[in-house]
Amino acid sequence: MYDFREWKHIFKLDPNKEIKDEALEQICESGTDAIMIGGTDGVTLEKVINLMARVRRYPLPCVLEISTIDSITPGFDLYFIPSVLNSSSRDWILGQHHLAVKEFGHWINWQEMIVEGYCILNENSKVAQLTNAMTKLDAEDVAAYAQMAEKMFHLPILYIEYSGTYGNPEIVKSAKNHLENTILFYGGGIDSVAKACEMANYADVVVVGNVIYENISEALKTVQAVKATVGND
Amino acid sequence: MYDFREWKHIFKLDPNKEIKDEALEQICESGTDAIMIGGTDGVTLEKVINLMARVRRYPLPCVLEISTIDSITPGFDLYFIPSVLNSSSRDWILGQHHLAVKEFGHWINWQEMIVEGYCILNENSKVAQLTNAMTKLDAEDVAAYAQMAEKMFHLPILYIEYSGTYGNPEIVKSAKNHLENTILFYGGGIDSVAKACEMANYADVVVVGNVIYENISEALKTVQAVKATVGND
Repeated sequence: MYDFREWKHIFKLDPNKEIKDEALEQICESGTDAIMIGGTDGVTLEKVINLMARVRRYPLPCVLEISTIDSITPGFDLYFIPSVLNSSSRDWILGQHHLAVKEFGHWINWQEMIVEGYCILNENSKVAQLTNAMTKLDAEDVAAYAQMAEKMFHLPILYIEYSGTYGNPEIVKSAKNHLENTILFYGGGIDSVAKACEMANYADVVVVGNVIYENISEALKTVQAVKATVGND
Repeated sequence: MYDFREWKHIFKLDPNKEIKDEALEQICESGTDAIMIGGTDGVTLEKVINLMARVRRYPLPCVLEISTIDSITPGFDLYFIPSVLNSSSRDWILGQHHLAVKEFGHWINWQEMIVEGYCILNENSKVAQLTNAMTKLDAEDVAAYAQMAEKMFHLPILYIEYSGTYGNPEIVKSAKNHLENTILFYGGGIDSVAKACEMANYADVVVVGNVIYENISEALKTVQAVKATVGND
């Protein structure tokens, strides 16, 4: 089984966005550690299966980040399950998870399920609005979530998500300084090598998404840039 | 350090209730595995410290079950932190915890902190009303919470709490059948040896509370009754 703890760079593909075969090939053969499929809007089972099948032509880990119960399908190497720690609604912390486990619990291979403690920090993002995230957090707030993720809930991943905008490196650094075992993911606004390198100084894993669809040549460059960065590890 | 995983029986003392020295001595010398101090109403720092000091005269583990930030004090062997999985409010799942960790995180010895995933099932109890618990749960609902407690959040304890009333053994059994590593606590309405024995068949740990104040001789008998019961272990 693939070990996400060894990863440094992930490309995140949105099932609701079009990507041509040539671009997909470049992404999958870029040297990135994994492809994560996930999005906020318009994620349907058909779109997820279609994109998975296209990615599966390439020999790298393929992860589904679960956003709706309806779009879960077998065939991925791992399933990442967000638990939005700074949501104001129980639904996004553990409520929808409860419904899913009640219905599908006996089918679940828990070895493949990885819970991500999410902190969503861009108040204008769709995901912040969808999850009613309380985004006005300072470095101490995020540090407290980091401690809770690791010490209280023993989550394997803390995911700092600035979805669509570039985040505050001091906040990412503060989270990293409070983690020992939990792996820190950073995502949001990585549209250049410089930004990828800066966040790679603090986060264990840098997730690159939107720039794939906007500037693929810059997206591809982030792979080696992140891997060449010596972070806090 | 004491290991709660080896315990079978706990007496829970309410800081807001009076207990005479003689009764306290009987409770502490009963052979119970630990004293847990905790309650819902009128828990003040002064009452907690006073009761802790009296219990500390006896050589058994003394645990504070944290109900309000204001009543936390050093001096206990362990601190149990409830996370109410079936609360409709984020405050009782992880919200108050976030405030506490933000303020006191740097003081916390995480080795002493044990998170309890709570399922509160008596809709008429004060604690259900305080935490806005969604108590109308069947055995499958509770089984799903058990799986989430163990597999998603890696909680050391799942606490099925019928606070003030005797619960449904089938629900406790269902939870137990879905747990491997997480320790199952049962509390609520244990006012006789027969009830203590019945729940000890399924729960790893039986918590005895109110009957201490209502019928101490019956309370004392639950200790050996629980310990003599061969449960699912």
